[in-house]
Amino acid sequence: MAKVVIGVMGPGNEATTSDKEVAFKLGKLIAKEGWVLLTGGRNKGVMDAASEGAKSAGGLVIGILPTGDRSTFSQHLDIEIITEMKSARNNINVLSSNVVVACGMGAGTASEAAMAIKANKQIVLIDQDETSKKFFQKIGGHLVSFVNNPEDVIESIKKLL
Amino acid sequence: MAKVVIGVMGPGNEATTSDKEVAFKLGKLIAKEGWVLLTGGRNKGVMDAASEGAKSAGGLVIGILPTGDRSTFSQHLDIEIITEMKSARNNINVLSSNVVVACGMGAGTASEAAMAIKANKQIVLIDQDETSKKFFQKIGGHLVSFVNNPEDVIESIKKLL
Amino acid sequence: MAKVVIGVMGPGNEATTSDKEVAFKLGKLIAKEGWVLLTGGRNKGVMDAASEGAKSAGGLVIGILPTGDRSTFSQHLDIEIITEMKSARNNINVLSSNVVVACGMGAGTASEAAMAIKANKQIVLIDQDETSKKFFQKIGGHLVSFVNNPEDVIESIKKLL
Amino acid sequence: MAKVVIGVMGPGNEATTSDKEVAFKLGKLIAKEGWVLLTGGRNKGVMDAASEGAKSAGGLVIGILPTGDRSTFSQHLDIEIITEMKSARNNINVLSSNVVVACGMGAGTASEAAMAIKANKQIVLIDQDETSKKFFQKIGGHLVSFVNNPEDVIESIKKLL
Repeated sequence: MAKVVIGVMGPGNEATTSDKEVAFKLGKLIAKEGWVLLTGGRNKGVMDAASEGAKSAGGLVIGILPTGDRSTFSQHLDIEIITEMKSARNNINVLSSNVVVACGMGAGTASEAAMAIKANKQIVLIDQDETSKKFFQKIGGHLVSFVNNPEDVIESIKKLL
Repeated sequence: MAKVVIGVMGPGNEATTSDKEVAFKLGKLIAKEGWVLLTGGRNKGVMDAASEGAKSAGGLVIGILPTGDRSTFSQHLDIEIITEMKSARNNINVLSSNVVVACGMGAGTASEAAMAIKANKQIVLIDQDETSKKFFQKIGGHLVSFVNNPEDVIESIKKLL
Repeated sequence: MAKVVIGVMGPGNEATTSDKEVAFKLGKLIAKEGWVLLTGGRNKGVMDAASEGAKSAGGLVIGILPTGDRSTFSQHLDIEIITEMKSARNNINVLSSNVVVACGMGAGTASEAAMAIKANKQIVLIDQDETSKKFFQKIGGHLVSFVNNPEDVIESIKKLL
Repeated sequence: MAKVVIGVMGPGNEATTSDKEVAFKLGKLIAKEGWVLLTGGRNKGVMDAASEGAKSAGGLVIGILPTGDRSTFSQHLDIEIITEMKSARNNINVLSSNVVVACGMGAGTASEAAMAIKANKQIVLIDQDETSKKFFQKIGGHLVSFVNNPEDVIESIKKLL
């Protein structure tokens, strides 16, 4: 039987310090549950921090990479899935995750959250502002959960699996 | 020199009557300017109405189709680009358009608007509610314009080209 | 009703002078039939020569581009479909063509010919050596036709449409 | 550091009994080396047999799936990467593998072998007939190795890594 895969999406270059701290902790907690972490695979922001967190707890980390340029790969990946499809790979990220988590917000993350909803996937958004909450509530309805910290993400995922 | 291509994105099954009326008129106006219309190609909602409008004015219409199932193709396409990539084709829609227009809102349209912003494309949103306006203003800044009718879309596009 | 689209595939940098001469003539003949030419869109080899030929006869030319780098775009395209998917776009090339023509041979062209056969598309190969003929005959059977010049390609396509 | 990933490609429905026996044994040997097995993920032919072989030896198996239809998924996958991109996912298969192995031959497998060569990847072909050998020798040159059994594939891969 296939492993449970949790996708963690979030900004790369534009991630805040807080986004990265939350992502690191979240990656760690995902690994502790025995779940596989899936990210966009780059060595930036939320992707990199979540991957580092999961590795620090002995987890398995899959990166779905937008390009084949190895200098942009996170050093914390176990499996490098190279798509060379740039942002079109965002759809693979969400389709391959049992639950999608968004940590931080930007255009790329918004596209992933929207694609998750389009694909009828459950999505958990951490610590978002009112503007993002209202928007994703509007387009996602019951598919969207809002939580404020990594521990609550894990609780939400357990209810969804 | 390549033709100007205007992408019109919007809901399929969930499009409102108003969305479709606006899309039909917009397709017509785009064709009258001599621009090529690009849509997601299906025989539903905004895609189909915009295509029908453009054809009614003698325009050229390109559909970027998510599947190869011909029973889902709009009957108003001149060129059928068949991707068999489902929602991942949304990225092609925005990358191939000089300007992207969103008419109506749903998860698929939101993913296209977000991908347009991610790709640094200008995007014009018609007749959106405050929730959507605030969200896309937040993630898109100066790349995003808001207008209330098809005529103003054309004026906006002329400034952007 | 959608236009007839003929895809012409062939090497880029590795195209021979003969490949390019044949491709130019073929593009011209396709345009004269009123068919749309579809190529991989780059300003190299068979793609570029076929596009130039079609434009010289007033045809409509669609390029399915592997990257967004405009310095690599053929100058003879009417419609630039930008995929940013590198070689994965080869599948779109074949799916979007009513008939696929291969002019010259290399790894990229071979992948397109094989994907055309996989998608159950008719494919016409021009002026191939015995090694290529035997291989595509083996994997493609009745889907594959072999001809020796651009005029015969047109005759073959007419029988297939 | 990322794990070594070996891609095993081959026919689905058209695989011969011999193709499947070779693929099973090859999957097993790949797992015994501690390498990750990557396949096209379906529950057919070479993909399924190689996955079953690798699982029987305790290996880790990644499937890059063409559609989201779970009834077509191999039951021997640890990680299900869902692309919904049909044959365009073939490019991801080869880009994500350190070495690509082709076992059996058909249109899909030929497209993967050609894409591997296009991406400058080493490819090992098992037990091919003269027609296929000559063709891939011609288009792939030094990137292509030919062997006759699973044990020799492992030896070839060791030299290439």
